[in-house]
Amino acid sequence: MSESNSVLVGQKPAMNYVLACITLFHSGAKEINVKARGRAISRAVDVVEILRRRFLPDVKIKSVGIGTQQLPATNQPGATTNVSTIEIVLTKG
Amino acid sequence: MSESNSVLVGQKPAMNYVLACITLFHSGAKEINVKARGRAISRAVDVVEILRRRFLPDVKIKSVGIGTQQLPATNQPGATTNVSTIEIVLTKG
Repeated sequence: MSESNSVLVGQKPAMNYVLACITLFHSGAKEINVKARGRAISRAVDVVEILRRRFLPDVKIKSVGIGTQQLPATNQPGATTNVSTIEIVLTKG
Repeated sequence: MSESNSVLVGQKPAMNYVLACITLFHSGAKEINVKARGRAISRAVDVVEILRRRFLPDVKIKSVGIGTQQLPATNQPGATTNVSTIEIVLTKG
């Protein structure tokens, strides 16, 4: 899957990312990768649920994966901190 | 799967729920259901990642499911509000 079909969910309102997904599907994408890390994980789930229940009921969840990413710690140079990640793959039939 | 093997993740520190999972597996559970809703979803992912990476590396993620739950709205009687949910099924080989 091309990286251009990814939506990285951050701190903006969920509806911004819902609209990004709708735009991608309307422009012909068959598969979208919704990704988030840390506190934004709950928002990524909200985005997918709003998208499927309110806007595009024919979108299916292909897979949900969780993982851990190591990031450089902001307060200590050289140290790393772990952050949880989620990746939800959506397909439109 | 029996309901007793569920861990419902809420607002306490992630380590509390990690310990609950370890206790369940040590008492012989083969499968544990880690559930959360709303803002606690990110913490549920943290719990599973801490459990697998730091304590029980042989625990596998069997499935991750997301969904929506309708709750009665707290401010308007009769109205409902939607909350996202996650359910992560863990197995120990």
